Amino acid sequence: MNCWHVNEDTFDAKTKNLRSQETVFTIGNGYFCTRGTFEEGYPRATPSTLLFGVFDDIPISEEELANAPDWTPLQLFVNGERFRIDRGTLLSYYRTLDIQNGVLRRSVHWESPGGVQLHVESERFASLADEHLGVIRYSVTIEESPNHQPVTVAIWASIDAAQGNYDVLHWETVDQGHQQNLLWLHSQTRHTLVQLAQTLSFTTSTPGFQKEIVDSDLAPSIRFYGTLTPGVTLTTEKLVVMYTSRDGVEPVNAALTHHQELLDQATRLPEPDIHSALKLDTISAEPVHACTQLYDQLLAQSSVAWKRFWDIADIVIEGDDKAQVSVRYNLYQLRINISPHDSRYNIAAKGLTGFGYRGHIFHDTEIFMLPFFIYEQPEIARNLLLYRYHLLDAARKKASSNGYRGAQYPWESTLSGEETTPTAIIHPETGELVPVLNGMIELHITASIAHAVWEYWRVSGDDEFMRDYGAELLLSTAMFWADRVEHNDERNDYEITNVIGPDEWHEHVNNNAYTNYMARSNIQYALYIFPWLLKNDPAKAEELADKLKLSAKTLNHWRDIIGHLRIPQDLPTRLFEQFDGFFQLDTLPQEKYHGRKDSYQGILGMEQVQKYRIIKQADVLMLLTVMLQDFDLQTKKVNWDYYYPITDHDYGSSLTPALHTILACELGLADVAYKQFMLGALVDLENLRGNTPEGIHAAGAGAVWQAMILGFAGLRVTDNGYTTRPTWPDNWQRLTFNFYYKGQLQHVDLHRQ
Amino acid sequence: MNCWHVNEDTFDAKTKNLRSQETVFTIGNGYFCTRGTFEEGYPRATPSTLLFGVFDDIPISEEELANAPDWTPLQLFVNGERFRIDRGTLLSYYRTLDIQNGVLRRSVHWESPGGVQLHVESERFASLADEHLGVIRYSVTIEESPNHQPVTVAIWASIDAAQGNYDVLHWETVDQGHQQNLLWLHSQTRHTLVQLAQTLSFTTSTPGFQKEIVDSDLAPSIRFYGTLTPGVTLTTEKLVVMYTSRDGVEPVNAALTHHQELLDQATRLPEPDIHSALKLDTISAEPVHACTQLYDQLLAQSSVAWKRFWDIADIVIEGDDKAQVSVRYNLYQLRINISPHDSRYNIAAKGLTGFGYRGHIFHDTEIFMLPFFIYEQPEIARNLLLYRYHLLDAARKKASSNGYRGAQYPWESTLSGEETTPTAIIHPETGELVPVLNGMIELHITASIAHAVWEYWRVSGDDEFMRDYGAELLLSTAMFWADRVEHNDERNDYEITNVIGPDEWHEHVNNNAYTNYMARSNIQYALYIFPWLLKNDPAKAEELADKLKLSAKTLNHWRDIIGHLRIPQDLPTRLFEQFDGFFQLDTLPQEKYHGRKDSYQGILGMEQVQKYRIIKQADVLMLLTVMLQDFDLQTKKVNWDYYYPITDHDYGSSLTPALHTILACELGLADVAYKQFMLGALVDLENLRGNTPEGIHAAGAGAVWQAMILGFAGLRVTDNGYTTRPTWPDNWQRLTFNFYYKGQLQHVDLHRQ
Repeated sequence: MNCWHVNEDTFDAKTKNLRSQETVFTIGNGYFCTRGTFEEGYPRATPSTLLFGVFDDIPISEEELANAPDWTPLQLFVNGERFRIDRGTLLSYYRTLDIQNGVLRRSVHWESPGGVQLHVESERFASLADEHLGVIRYSVTIEESPNHQPVTVAIWASIDAAQGNYDVLHWETVDQGHQQNLLWLHSQTRHTLVQLAQTLSFTTSTPGFQKEIVDSDLAPSIRFYGTLTPGVTLTTEKLVVMYTSRDGVEPVNAALTHHQELLDQATRLPEPDIHSALKLDTISAEPVHACTQLYDQLLAQSSVAWKRFWDIADIVIEGDDKAQVSVRYNLYQLRINISPHDSRYNIAAKGLTGFGYRGHIFHDTEIFMLPFFIYEQPEIARNLLLYRYHLLDAARKKASSNGYRGAQYPWESTLSGEETTPTAIIHPETGELVPVLNGMIELHITASIAHAVWEYWRVSGDDEFMRDYGAELLLSTAMFWADRVEHNDERNDYEITNVIGPDEWHEHVNNNAYTNYMARSNIQYALYIFPWLLKNDPAKAEELADKLKLSAKTLNHWRDIIGHLRIPQDLPTRLFEQFDGFFQLDTLPQEKYHGRKDSYQGILGMEQVQKYRIIKQADVLMLLTVMLQDFDLQTKKVNWDYYYPITDHDYGSSLTPALHTILACELGLADVAYKQFMLGALVDLENLRGNTPEGIHAAGAGAVWQAMILGFAGLRVTDNGYTTRPTWPDNWQRLTFNFYYKGQLQHVDLHRQ
Repeated sequence: MNCWHVNEDTFDAKTKNLRSQETVFTIGNGYFCTRGTFEEGYPRATPSTLLFGVFDDIPISEEELANAPDWTPLQLFVNGERFRIDRGTLLSYYRTLDIQNGVLRRSVHWESPGGVQLHVESERFASLADEHLGVIRYSVTIEESPNHQPVTVAIWASIDAAQGNYDVLHWETVDQGHQQNLLWLHSQTRHTLVQLAQTLSFTTSTPGFQKEIVDSDLAPSIRFYGTLTPGVTLTTEKLVVMYTSRDGVEPVNAALTHHQELLDQATRLPEPDIHSALKLDTISAEPVHACTQLYDQLLAQSSVAWKRFWDIADIVIEGDDKAQVSVRYNLYQLRINISPHDSRYNIAAKGLTGFGYRGHIFHDTEIFMLPFFIYEQPEIARNLLLYRYHLLDAARKKASSNGYRGAQYPWESTLSGEETTPTAIIHPETGELVPVLNGMIELHITASIAHAVWEYWRVSGDDEFMRDYGAELLLSTAMFWADRVEHNDERNDYEITNVIGPDEWHEHVNNNAYTNYMARSNIQYALYIFPWLLKNDPAKAEELADKLKLSAKTLNHWRDIIGHLRIPQDLPTRLFEQFDGFFQLDTLPQEKYHGRKDSYQGILGMEQVQKYRIIKQADVLMLLTVMLQDFDLQTKKVNWDYYYPITDHDYGSSLTPALHTILACELGLADVAYKQFMLGALVDLENLRGNTPEGIHAAGAGAVWQAMILGFAGLRVTDNGYTTRPTWPDNWQRLTFNFYYKGQLQHVDLHRQ
């Protein structure tokens, strides 16, 4: 088994799994991702190329990543018959996503209704070395033809503008043309007016084919026409370069120039020795052509970039191939969905791999994904946090519109930082409108962001970031919480009422333990950082105190809140109460629902489920995971024993299975840890939640890293260094990985004793 | 002034009026309508071809007419420069919709950035003689070129698949190809899987041009390339044939066969005498070619069909050209939006001219449009009512789901007859969800349909229709009302509570006069028709009595309801009360809102407006108009005096201005009648409501006919004949029109005394 390969050996146009596999076989480089649909199409395919931070307006949910004109299409005709895998006779099919090199390959044997047998190989990648570049190599061999006659072959490479996010069309063609052998398509989003240029070259090294350039506003194409003798292979290379107005350039010129440079590079490659190549085999040998060489070179450059990534980020598990592949697959996803140098946008709930959650940014980044980047790709972690810093003004507006000072982050955001949580969604089955309260009362994201700033600083030691950006964010968010808490005169404490905690099945709750604890930490961070800043950069501290109107009185008030903010917990047993009154809710007789096919919320309804002690996802247990080093083992055990059994592990949130692993490892529950871990690691590869068609679970991918490193490896970082304490599932023999600590790369190699 | 022409002499890509003019310049034949966008496109254009009854699914509003792949595009390049009216220099512009012949013509002089001056003429029509056929003639003359050199010309005719209803894409290409000189595109709707074939031919009689056929799944095209000397004209003809799976045929074959027959017909046309044609003028003369002849012939056939329509439906007003053109324009709209032989669908609120109201059918047909058809096109009237008959089962289900027997018609419907009123809409400005109650409690449509059946029968004398369809509909709807009314034991009468009447600004009202009166009439019609049926077709009567479970007891109960259904009216003054308690509402001081730019509902909000005696549209006055012959002049006067001043004439409903004309004529208020009439007649031509971009006001068009014939001409039909009693606005000298009475065409010619 190749532990870098995700494979597929069947194709069925009617299977429901088809759209899920489109997601699984996504390629990308952070600038764009392209779903694993076929070049030739099939009915109800969902081709998608989403560009990092390129949005267009939609009703209700404000805006969504705008599926760009599809750069992948190739159409092949043999003796006038169209090659489509869902028509004719499929003789064999194999597809592999090569995670190591970021390459998707497909090999197909097929027979046309007229009796032509073909072997078609395609290979595509989004260059990790050149983020504007997508490349496809497509080759066709006639294996048999009626009477062994040569077969006429037409092959068309196009860019197709008629693509939507499902049914919603976002682009309109501005202009189109060609310049020598380069086609260009200039599009703009219909509402936000983002400009996109896509240039196309299409080449072949096979002799005897005529080339035609077909201009068109909707599907400009370059086409080859010729004849193939059985046994001979036609190999073509399709290159597409993409630039948008977000790149700060005039995109058409930028794309044409860039693309022309690539082609010029090909002509500068050493002359191939056609004669000696031909000598090898008079039938199947192809002349080695500059374009073929260019393809190989571009692929090699991209592979080198991938190697640099894996040299740091790879985790090697000896003894468990399935876990090995799936862990790598999750790391691959964490890489392809983020642009490493653009802090104006962030990693969406589904990354760039599908239309789910419309490219909106959630707390998923800070709670689930950021630890991977902090430890493995700290420069990206810094950008992810800079995104939040850029949104500070918008967060201040949100706080202010609710009557508070400071900064309140939106539950969902895109580019501007305005709240983009829809106020209602359309129920996917009933078609009815369901109100959504999260944008109004799910508050904890603000504290999660502050915590993420703190963690980044703690592990990276990036004082400059803390001084220039982090401190202001910590102080501004603390100020929001200090205004948001209410003083309870009767109990003489502070409380936070009417919220939704991480467990979203209980709405309008008071004093959610997670929210209150994280809010308190947020204020604590601020109280720590202000004196730190005063000491390290007094001018900056003065400037912030002025800007944010910080006074000694403010800081004293914050101290008072820290001392008296209610965190519902039964102190003798150390058991947290998820929120005020949670212990008084009815017990749900889960055994009555054995064999269910839906979540408890789905079965009981949104109103009824609130009455029960049954939760969608880790809430108290998330607190114990996120603030891992704040709690002793006894606290973890008692809360695990209480909350783990009342969590809907099967149909609740996909976010927490891999997170549960960390606590299970601490508690020595290796079997539970492994089971939960694999549920998280395979969530998309096996479409375990049924919603992989709408995109991968990006937060889950981050949680898989956390489960591996903070869970199984037991890595703990303090100011004085780090420790590991491995937990070994059956069969696991060895675990190796790297991570950055205070800017230095560390290598860890753990062996089972 | 040509009183058959709607003209436009300016083009400004930035004007807000652009989309409104797209609607105004729609061509169509009932099978399809095509909006007046340009062949060459401009930014944010809304090209649209909606096919009668071709729907696809959408969220919230169930389904909408699916904008088909655009058959109109033509692209022109001179010396490689693209001709677009929004680029380069527009030297002159003129556009005319010739209502008489259903032809849209545009003439443009334009200069390219490179200095080529062009004259472009285009002419298009949807054949009224062959409903599957759309035709464009497009001609280009080079008027000047740099150094008087010949100019290279490329002209591409395509079908463009990347069209949506605004941003919503409904079609996906199934396959595409060509057969000799005919291109074909086979598409299907993405959810309802309606099949559509479009075939394209593109011809020219100008010598020296090379033809190319370009296959493509998204924009298949036929292209001509050549050179034009200044002064010479290139003339091309684009024909598109469309068939759908609704036509009961395999659409691709049907379209190809039909299209080929048209072309074969061209080759059978007599040989043109090229030499004598050329003799006329050695520079500008064109050889008369078979294709040119074919175009002329197709246009002539369509014109003949239009003449047949106008011979009956035209209304001639002498002395008022503006009124004359606008009346004809409204009659034109009534014709192009209905297929004369397809009773599975009906005339939508916006017909086939735009996306507003998503192609849903309202009571607009029966109350506003049907009178035109009853009097002018009785076969179409019959089909429009057959549509309702086909929905009877669905209406029974709706009644039953609400706990009633009989048939309750949906407030909005499409093909299946299910209720398609959305339960909420997104406010176009605030983005908030606004609940929509009409599908639940706006009941009067059921009685309106029954009344329409009655009126059709009364005027046409079509006993066969009444026997086979009408009677069942009258009895089934009466049965619904009899169950829906509630007995008020205290007052010992019947009432209908919790409804919305025609004035939709007051919701949850009790005993809306219009609703109750119409419901009572519905039951009266049923009570009349059952004995009629028993007498004329006892077997059918028995069958219905059995099917509907009609008993003597039922009929007695109906009689009791008729005698005791509450119709709120102050008997001494004859003033109707719009609903229980309306008289007690607060007076709105309208003078305080002088100069307002929004409706009273928009200004006051949905909640507040309900508290005032201010109404969106005719309600009591609609009752007096619809049941014109039931009320005496005194009743009309007292109600007019009360309700007319409290109606929001400026920003309320567009439906009623033209209806008010009828009462105004009866009351001798010629000036008010004329003012209201013109507000209705010009609603789209002058975009008076600001929403013409979303399509024409089909109900308004019907109301214009009513205003003319039942208002100004004062036509009244009884069982014994008809009378007229004209009202003469200033300048009107003569009024002539035709109408059908008991199957016989009548001609009326009224002269001012």
